[in-house]
Amino acid sequence: MTTNDSLLRLAQIIESRKAANGGDPEKSYVARLLHKGPDAFLKKIGEEATEAVMAAKDIDCAASHGSASPELKGKLVGEVADLWFHSLIALAHYGLSPADVIAELERREGTSGIEEKALRKAQHRDAAEKP
Amino acid sequence: MTTNDSLLRLAQIIESRKAANGGDPEKSYVARLLHKGPDAFLKKIGEEATEAVMAAKDIDCAASHGSASPELKGKLVGEVADLWFHSLIALAHYGLSPADVIAELERREGTSGIEEKALRKAQHRDAAEKP
Amino acid sequence: MTTNDSLLRLAQIIESRKAANGGDPEKSYVARLLHKGPDAFLKKIGEEATEAVMAAKDIDCAASHGSASPELKGKLVGEVADLWFHSLIALAHYGLSPADVIAELERREGTSGIEEKALRKAQHRDAAEKP
Amino acid sequence: MTTNDSLLRLAQIIESRKAANGGDPEKSYVARLLHKGPDAFLKKIGEEATEAVMAAKDIDCAASHGSASPELKGKLVGEVADLWFHSLIALAHYGLSPADVIAELERREGTSGIEEKALRKAQHRDAAEKP
Repeated sequence: MTTNDSLLRLAQIIESRKAANGGDPEKSYVARLLHKGPDAFLKKIGEEATEAVMAAKDIDCAASHGSASPELKGKLVGEVADLWFHSLIALAHYGLSPADVIAELERREGTSGIEEKALRKAQHRDAAEKP
Repeated sequence: MTTNDSLLRLAQIIESRKAANGGDPEKSYVARLLHKGPDAFLKKIGEEATEAVMAAKDIDCAASHGSASPELKGKLVGEVADLWFHSLIALAHYGLSPADVIAELERREGTSGIEEKALRKAQHRDAAEKP
Repeated sequence: MTTNDSLLRLAQIIESRKAANGGDPEKSYVARLLHKGPDAFLKKIGEEATEAVMAAKDIDCAASHGSASPELKGKLVGEVADLWFHSLIALAHYGLSPADVIAELERREGTSGIEEKALRKAQHRDAAEKP
Repeated sequence: MTTNDSLLRLAQIIESRKAANGGDPEKSYVARLLHKGPDAFLKKIGEEATEAVMAAKDIDCAASHGSASPELKGKLVGEVADLWFHSLIALAHYGLSPADVIAELERREGTSGIEEKALRKAQHRDAAEKP
């Protein structure tokens, strides 16, 4: 039942924390968030996104002084991990898998010209924003 | 191929878009974001987090009417893909890899009692918030 | 004139941009956001919140070097203005007024012990987060 | 020392919670956030923005069923109040006042053509986003 695929294994663990699978809100953080309902874990996505942005800005600031410490980089890694982890909880709640997200990312990568399209949009936006 | 592999391949593509590796802001969306600097892609993390939350709320709403359409679920997958993709750009900019994030997630998973600790914190928070 | 008056006047302008009041999406930014529907302006709230946080971090960074420039402070003021402005658009859409928000803030201020309660919650959270 | 201007009065209260003015982190929620430093209150801005967005989506969903309850509207008012309140704490920390934000909003309002400029940008963005 385990896999060497890290995100899928995490998703399996999260799946096992659903009430229907015996997850106990008194014993598991994930079971508890799932039990509290969507707002509880969706709120965490907004929160962790902000914390990731702040951790990144701290690295920029340290870099502008000299060089960024491994500690600051580790903090950013931790915040991105929190962000992805709570995304995984949301996916599980809605019956989705990280494999769906990866497939979507690969689909875009494989779609010839996808970056060019995103680029043209962004260029138009910038042109539009010039005074 | 695992999701780890997919994320690492995406990270390589992003890496190839850095100016130092010949990325051209006129031809690539990623090169362009990297060229504009941190605020450009960090802002996207906050933006995509909000869009993911809204897409999730749309599924909840549809589910409360009857059932959520595959289209709404596809929208959430797309927003989480955007969120993770811009996280990958940030990681690349700071010299980090999705492997660092995966390792951190595995470290937590492997740390016996980690969920219990997060749980105790959350229980204390809730107890504290009771009137 | 008080800040209350200013916010109410802004709210009146936003109100006049509703389609029912003759607002034209081809001529007004606010009419356009209202015409596009909630996701368009709600997304802006998440976006502007992130931009305000980044502008604040820039001041912190500059202060850690020496002192923050008026330009950086002006940027934060602009981002908070954007954040509040899009909040006002949301309030208008849902038939609410900045007066409701002001009243809520005053209610809390007037509720004896309200800060103490928020404080106790926060202290419990911190206690819970100690290793 | 009091004013009938609600936001300025709130700003004065927040000002009085600074350590330099005798604010005690053990007795006041605001003093505590200021004592903990910028990340503590900036994080709250991202968090409250997400909660405001979720509260707004709940009204939309209820409206799509029939009509939104006063309770749901009150929730949104409370979240916007939280968002503005934590914005005020940030402004105070950086030596800024809500009067600066209001002045910026009035400046924009007074700047002839300001809405037209924002509109043109937004129209260009949309044109650019068409497939």
